[in-house]
Amino acid sequence: MPVNLPVFTPAQIHPVPGVSLGTAMAGIRKANRRDVLLVTIAEGASVAGVFTQNRFCAAPVQVCREHLQQGAAVRALVFNTGCANAGTGALGLDNARASCAEVARLLGVQAHQVLPFSTGVILEHLPMDRLLPGLPKAQADLAESHWSEAAQAIMTTDTVPKCRSRQLRIGDHLVTITGISKGAGMIRPNMATMLGMLATDAAVAPALLQAWVREIAEDSFNRVTVDGDTSTNDSFVMIATGRSGLRIDSPADAGAPELKAALTAVAQELAQALVRDGEGATKFISIRVEQAGSMDEAKAIAYAIAHSPLVKTAFFASDPNLGRILCAIGYAGVQDLAVEQLELYLDDVLVAAKGGRHPDYLEEQGQAVLRQSEITIRVVLHRGQVNTTVWTCDLSHDYVSINADYRS
Amino acid sequence: MPVNLPVFTPAQIHPVPGVSLGTAMAGIRKANRRDVLLVTIAEGASVAGVFTQNRFCAAPVQVCREHLQQGAAVRALVFNTGCANAGTGALGLDNARASCAEVARLLGVQAHQVLPFSTGVILEHLPMDRLLPGLPKAQADLAESHWSEAAQAIMTTDTVPKCRSRQLRIGDHLVTITGISKGAGMIRPNMATMLGMLATDAAVAPALLQAWVREIAEDSFNRVTVDGDTSTNDSFVMIATGRSGLRIDSPADAGAPELKAALTAVAQELAQALVRDGEGATKFISIRVEQAGSMDEAKAIAYAIAHSPLVKTAFFASDPNLGRILCAIGYAGVQDLAVEQLELYLDDVLVAAKGGRHPDYLEEQGQAVLRQSEITIRVVLHRGQVNTTVWTCDLSHDYVSINADYRS
Repeated sequence: MPVNLPVFTPAQIHPVPGVSLGTAMAGIRKANRRDVLLVTIAEGASVAGVFTQNRFCAAPVQVCREHLQQGAAVRALVFNTGCANAGTGALGLDNARASCAEVARLLGVQAHQVLPFSTGVILEHLPMDRLLPGLPKAQADLAESHWSEAAQAIMTTDTVPKCRSRQLRIGDHLVTITGISKGAGMIRPNMATMLGMLATDAAVAPALLQAWVREIAEDSFNRVTVDGDTSTNDSFVMIATGRSGLRIDSPADAGAPELKAALTAVAQELAQALVRDGEGATKFISIRVEQAGSMDEAKAIAYAIAHSPLVKTAFFASDPNLGRILCAIGYAGVQDLAVEQLELYLDDVLVAAKGGRHPDYLEEQGQAVLRQSEITIRVVLHRGQVNTTVWTCDLSHDYVSINADYRS
Repeated sequence: MPVNLPVFTPAQIHPVPGVSLGTAMAGIRKANRRDVLLVTIAEGASVAGVFTQNRFCAAPVQVCREHLQQGAAVRALVFNTGCANAGTGALGLDNARASCAEVARLLGVQAHQVLPFSTGVILEHLPMDRLLPGLPKAQADLAESHWSEAAQAIMTTDTVPKCRSRQLRIGDHLVTITGISKGAGMIRPNMATMLGMLATDAAVAPALLQAWVREIAEDSFNRVTVDGDTSTNDSFVMIATGRSGLRIDSPADAGAPELKAALTAVAQELAQALVRDGEGATKFISIRVEQAGSMDEAKAIAYAIAHSPLVKTAFFASDPNLGRILCAIGYAGVQDLAVEQLELYLDDVLVAAKGGRHPDYLEEQGQAVLRQSEITIRVVLHRGQVNTTVWTCDLSHDYVSINADYRS
């Protein structure tokens, strides 16, 4: 059973003035499911994005980078599921560009004002004969209220749509933040994950929005992992329409810290939603590394634990075989780590210290924590001042089933 | 079903003059199974070892390093299964040293001439009240012919004992090489794997043997991975007794290349045996990276493929979802990799080139290769002259079952 939080009801999802969404069933891979999403963005909005660091990045990622470099205002995003358009060479680029051109024609904008996103199977070409007819249908469906349907349209192996939304008052302005994400496998974002989109009706200056999208991705999507497989298609975009009246031009402006904190919080909820719905997940695991000497070593230790199949299967079994966590800490590559100086906690239970099992630790305590569906592993290094948290899930039979059967 | 090669019969296993082996059932973790192995080594032999790079290395690994540093001739090895004596702090060191002292007392040698090895659960203490009484029983069982029983005594989740042996003529001398190994999970050796031992009756000068043990481990145990989890206890020892009459003092000596090649070949068979019997394995996968610019990048790409849960589950399903291999190549961390320039082969089938699927590649071809139980993935980078091979297995339901139930 995934560890999903309740899906937001339509009443909990606040539209973002200036952002409209329309979906269609184009039959890209399967019939009778929403698989195309068109997002239009009002004139005057800022848009910024970060993309996968995978060298085999998908054609749409390459086209997003090209279009953003040209510097023109982004006016639309086009998403499809069912085909990642990755590992598709020159034809893949042609297809991604043709999708943008068709959207541009429909909307009366330029092709480089459109950003394309794809998710699904790698090494297969986009079925343009089915995708292109879907675009006018998605256009006909455009509405500011269609966030739920948008979250559904980008799902692949996700079991629930992922949409989070909040409103907050900053100064005199009521500001809305709403976003969607998708992904349940091939998840270890390296800059951002496939298909995260976060919109606000605050105005944020383009250069600042570009800085924020990196910083916020680093604290949210870049801190989750399901299986360590960094996707070819990871993409995270932020949209700031300005319709609320709040205007932020610099990090020193009144309201900037509150807005950034709220954007980060929603991005973290969307990122954690990927792990909660991780393929086969039965546990939601937060791995907190404290007092590290550097962010590099904090991340190395957190990810070594998060990616260890032995740790993940023990958590699946609710078996406090906690030596496996020490083992992962030991091979994380921190060369001068003195293992006698660190402490390992499971929630608030001190498990290991001074290089071994703590004398007061009882197996029943570990067992009690492991039976929960949400667990925190905490490693205190006593090497410096850096803290970080990585979120992951366990490794279950269903992960194997889902990925052995993915294409069938 | 594991992809094991046939177990060597006693008739195929050649004793190594100067090496005796004795086993006992000490009930360390389970009753009625061999779980203690004592190996005695005749005077005049050279012994060298390499050990895990895990910072949480087990107490016996620390004691092995201490004893080898003292430089006295090693006269005995003592192994136990059922408890790794890792994550056990000061008491763990005391217990490992006490085991050596007891062996030394029984054999009339010094404690620092004994090397200890343990494998099993981490974070638990050695049951000395059961281990110590097992040692005289193992001593009473000592014989040069007991290699099969020795291989059985060091098994944990292994489904078959792992022993390989060969004889070859070098110059005027008939030389014997025989070794054992164990391990099926927590396998990504980093210097050597838990409990590999290789003996020959050639004489090899101690400094040369120490160089060879590193080089041979690098080409054998350091090229296999099951789950990427580098154990706390990895240990690989080589013993050269000199009884055959062949004497090698320098790599330039007559017979040195033949001897080293034969030792490497047996070490590779023992290392591959770990993967063939990898926890839950149903496929034996060789990942060959050719024409890399450096060994670092060749290894990075090979291990990225070998550790990808998505690649491993696709192979388990015999599903040629080969975009997952490209994805892993892409995130291996080779920053300037031009993906348009590499080729991906499955056995002899060209799957991808020029950044995408090869136009002649047919799904049925990939399917035919994937149905085999032994498969080679070949990546040709065209960046330089370095080649390497890593051996791994697939990820199946049984891996999850075995590791979810390991302690029960």
